[in-house]
Amino acid sequence: MNIKSVAKKAGVSVATVSRVLNHPDAVAPDTKEHILSVMESLDYTPNWFARGLKLNRTGVIALLIPDILDLGYMEIAKGVEDVAHQKKYNIMLCTTEEDRGKEKEQVENFLTRKVDGIILVSSFLKNSDLQQIKKQDVSVVLIGKNEDNTGANLVYTDYKAATSEAVKHMIEIGHRKIGMIYGTRPKLENMDKLEGFKKTLMEEGLNYRDSHIVEEENSIEGGYLAASKLLNQADRPEALFVSSDTMAIGAMEKIKQTGLRIPQDIAVVGFDNLKISGFMEPKLTTVAKPMYRMGLVAARLLFDLMEEDEQKEQEPQEILIQSKLKVRKSCGHQDRLKEIF
Amino acid sequence: MNIKSVAKKAGVSVATVSRVLNHPDAVAPDTKEHILSVMESLDYTPNWFARGLKLNRTGVIALLIPDILDLGYMEIAKGVEDVAHQKKYNIMLCTTEEDRGKEKEQVENFLTRKVDGIILVSSFLKNSDLQQIKKQDVSVVLIGKNEDNTGANLVYTDYKAATSEAVKHMIEIGHRKIGMIYGTRPKLENMDKLEGFKKTLMEEGLNYRDSHIVEEENSIEGGYLAASKLLNQADRPEALFVSSDTMAIGAMEKIKQTGLRIPQDIAVVGFDNLKISGFMEPKLTTVAKPMYRMGLVAARLLFDLMEEDEQKEQEPQEILIQSKLKVRKSCGHQDRLKEIF
Repeated sequence: MNIKSVAKKAGVSVATVSRVLNHPDAVAPDTKEHILSVMESLDYTPNWFARGLKLNRTGVIALLIPDILDLGYMEIAKGVEDVAHQKKYNIMLCTTEEDRGKEKEQVENFLTRKVDGIILVSSFLKNSDLQQIKKQDVSVVLIGKNEDNTGANLVYTDYKAATSEAVKHMIEIGHRKIGMIYGTRPKLENMDKLEGFKKTLMEEGLNYRDSHIVEEENSIEGGYLAASKLLNQADRPEALFVSSDTMAIGAMEKIKQTGLRIPQDIAVVGFDNLKISGFMEPKLTTVAKPMYRMGLVAARLLFDLMEEDEQKEQEPQEILIQSKLKVRKSCGHQDRLKEIF
Repeated sequence: MNIKSVAKKAGVSVATVSRVLNHPDAVAPDTKEHILSVMESLDYTPNWFARGLKLNRTGVIALLIPDILDLGYMEIAKGVEDVAHQKKYNIMLCTTEEDRGKEKEQVENFLTRKVDGIILVSSFLKNSDLQQIKKQDVSVVLIGKNEDNTGANLVYTDYKAATSEAVKHMIEIGHRKIGMIYGTRPKLENMDKLEGFKKTLMEEGLNYRDSHIVEEENSIEGGYLAASKLLNQADRPEALFVSSDTMAIGAMEKIKQTGLRIPQDIAVVGFDNLKISGFMEPKLTTVAKPMYRMGLVAARLLFDLMEEDEQKEQEPQEILIQSKLKVRKSCGHQDRLKEIF
């Protein structure tokens, strides 16, 4: 059964049947309905593989994220999905486990499968990799990155500036001995936060102690472990900036178990603004990272690139979406202001 | 550039090149390496679309879940992914929004794309739909279901039995006026929980009041709203069984805002055992639904079906994975036992 049999039985040209399959809006409703009913009567299913070969369009975009169990990445995925759904595209979602080799293997796999576009979160791709993908006529947009490349279409947030805003707020409300917990991964993101943390303290005339800065795995357990290391010190910090809400939740658990009060004995500020952070006790002060919006904007940029013929001529675009501090209870804003004024 | 050019340059038959692509383990290591290096020198990329046409294998399975932002579904996805990764398969992940029409559209899309297998979570597919998919030589496994169909390969958990275990525990530790909050979706799952709740109370010689049973959207906000409706009543319940941890988190927030203590004034038991539930205050007693395992088992069953030639002859398999009660603080186990003994 093929397109010719359908055309013959329907009494139309092959081109008309093809148009129903590929540009249904360009076919008169009556004709379309007639052809579709003939297809149904013949039990005809268009061969999408062949179609992929011919039209060079697959109706699929790939989304590569480091981890499927991370709620933040899922918010990005939701943003991408909402755009793809509108465009009647399907998403092929895969995880890289933030492993350079695995990411490359997945990208190569997608290239041989001829997807129309790829969105990569926290990617390790280098300029040369990006050039090679471009050559195969596949559009790419990065969300954040792990490699100091240029020449990429990129949607990102400024982790240094966001960290600086959070740390300045902690200083303003009276905290002096501020420590930091940060995650091993994603690497570049955490290095930016660490740099923003140190730089802000120094600019504000404060010192930081190396013993008050602890790196652990980016998980609830990692945050718990990092807090244990900090609370064991004779001269512990009075406030903690934590690089993710997930780690902050683990740190708060340890602080409470130790019998210390948050924020009176030790204040905590997280990063991400996960939905659940507003339901912790105390409610977590955090930096709201606009993850859904980053997914949405990245997907829109990708479709713009895919739909333009002259994309090869274009300068790569970098789109910055700012994060914003969200003040709740855990930083001690209220308590501190009472003491100061 | 095609497979013939590769064979010619490598000085081997087309069949040997094909074997390297399709059954690399059946080719002598030296030969394989030689052919792969020729492919590389010729910049040859196997055409996966054409390959799909010929071998009738695409290396892709589809996973349809109701909602991408639900942590429970993501745990299922992780289980599926771990098996797929081992089998060197990719997953195409899509959401149905628990909409019968959208689910059907997605399935049809996947059938025209010739995926090798489909896993559906909380599916509305009827027997006739399943038969039609089978005809196209695509294997299907359901995780839970929304339709009272038979004849499906199914991985499920017994919501009635699990609810009964939870409610019996609440009764054993002394609660009498027990209310319930349940979610609008997924429909069948919530109806099972509701039935298990009512039946257990009656079997234990207790009554339930219709005014103590509230249905709301399955979200934090829905749980909050449902709790508001219950707490407003003059004669409010002293314990709540909530159909999901997500809703339980919203209900606990409302209870705390009202100035009531959990569990002393009102006990709460959830369902799902999300990771975050162990970090709430108080820690949430809940039914541990083995979501990761359900994903794992479903994916293994799917690959078994895909790899067997005679699958059409087989009886559909139903695999039950039991949920288990996880007692923490929010149900008042400790407090109640002290009162009783």
